[in-house]
Amino acid sequence: MSDDSLAPIRTVSVTRVGPAGAIRTTDRAAAEEPLDVRLHGRSFAIIMRTPGRDKDLAAGFLLSERVIRSADDLGAVEHCRHPDQSRAHHVVDVFLRGDAATRVARMLENRRQLVANSSCGVCGRATIEELAGEVEPLGERPAVPLETVRVLPERLRTTQVTFEETGGLHGVALFTAGGDLVASAEDVGRHNAVDKVFGSLLLADRPTAEAVLVVSGRVSFEIVQKAWIAGVPVIVAVSAPTSLAIDLAQAAGISLLGFVRGASLNIYTHTDRIAGV
Amino acid sequence: MSDDSLAPIRTVSVTRVGPAGAIRTTDRAAAEEPLDVRLHGRSFAIIMRTPGRDKDLAAGFLLSERVIRSADDLGAVEHCRHPDQSRAHHVVDVFLRGDAATRVARMLENRRQLVANSSCGVCGRATIEELAGEVEPLGERPAVPLETVRVLPERLRTTQVTFEETGGLHGVALFTAGGDLVASAEDVGRHNAVDKVFGSLLLADRPTAEAVLVVSGRVSFEIVQKAWIAGVPVIVAVSAPTSLAIDLAQAAGISLLGFVRGASLNIYTHTDRIAGV
Repeated sequence: MSDDSLAPIRTVSVTRVGPAGAIRTTDRAAAEEPLDVRLHGRSFAIIMRTPGRDKDLAAGFLLSERVIRSADDLGAVEHCRHPDQSRAHHVVDVFLRGDAATRVARMLENRRQLVANSSCGVCGRATIEELAGEVEPLGERPAVPLETVRVLPERLRTTQVTFEETGGLHGVALFTAGGDLVASAEDVGRHNAVDKVFGSLLLADRPTAEAVLVVSGRVSFEIVQKAWIAGVPVIVAVSAPTSLAIDLAQAAGISLLGFVRGASLNIYTHTDRIAGV
Repeated sequence: MSDDSLAPIRTVSVTRVGPAGAIRTTDRAAAEEPLDVRLHGRSFAIIMRTPGRDKDLAAGFLLSERVIRSADDLGAVEHCRHPDQSRAHHVVDVFLRGDAATRVARMLENRRQLVANSSCGVCGRATIEELAGEVEPLGERPAVPLETVRVLPERLRTTQVTFEETGGLHGVALFTAGGDLVASAEDVGRHNAVDKVFGSLLLADRPTAEAVLVVSGRVSFEIVQKAWIAGVPVIVAVSAPTSLAIDLAQAAGISLLGFVRGASLNIYTHTDRIAGV
């Protein structure tokens, strides 16, 4: 269990760019890994989570989903012990008791097909390997000037009409390598805002593979996944990336930048995509 | 289509508490409503989103999910036109063409059971009505003093060990009406942090129905749903709530507070649960 993937924080390499220039250093990123919650031996849900307190997460999730009503419904809750299971520490096995056990047996019967789909990727092989097997890493593209990258969060903010009023929305915008706005969107869901941006281009029969995706908040695994599938080689975030976002960006050939604020910023992957560092 | 539920921003009533006392006024909240994305007439996914640009969202979501590979795979993308469908403007019908249409027909066949589960709640009747039918509104509970509420965000921050280091995690903590910490958790996923808090109590055979849930960021529908199921009558957020979070809190008998920062805060629902306003 001395696996790196179990720590809640991971040390990552970063190119830190400040007013005085760029230095190569390390940073600490919040860890993100998939957890497989199994009910009576069958995959019930895959949750992207920060490792640690997995049994708490599984129990609370089952309460929220109304699979259980109280602690009385819980039998054993434990990490997977199968010796052949390479990611056993990212699997929690839950067994229910009493009425809940009967209810769940029926429910799982109904969910058989879903389970077959959702369980295939995460336990046997890592999500990144799976995606990397299906989608090609992004190839050579013109580098984006550092000076352009710096101003994009401010340009994103000018598109965020609703956020200004409510403080409640995530903003996302797509730019050319020259810093021109291509499309933008706001949504209560960060992923939705990304989907709206790329979807609007699809429906207009325009290419999604523009130069830079800028997001107002943090960057999770799924944001990088969406950018990769859309063919965007640079992601600029105002806040922090997760560990899995960094790993996926590395595999995808995407340059991932975080904490892009004023004169300073962090480049986590593929620094060569940014010109003038 | 002059439905209130279609606007990206909603005007809500609020009790605004500042250094000079409390006033009853209005505020603008980011709207959150479920969208049903249908493929060839069958529910494929329910997405909690801000209304507007629903077709963009549906197209981008299908790209991210790798149901489509390019605009060429898209046939018609339109809002549901069924006259009997009361929430037709929250349903987008997508029809694919070519190979994608064949692929998706096979996929939907495999997903039959899942679809049967996920489509039942949202289109026919609203999510809130559904939940309200299953879970009782919370009853009478001791009011939480305003002075206690004000200090809880700072107490939450002292529990956020990992955030301090990485800036990448959501923090959640549960407190008694006296302001004592009961449980806390951090996670890259805001919902996971809530599940970890309640799950830890379940596994320790302790009650989840404590007085106040404090969250570091925004409050969506799902956070309120989790608090309701766990029996917590007050939610304190450092940032903004969505419109649906406010509606659900109203129905649940939960007092929802937002923008709790320094001397000022907003109370969106059930002001009587806060003493000294």
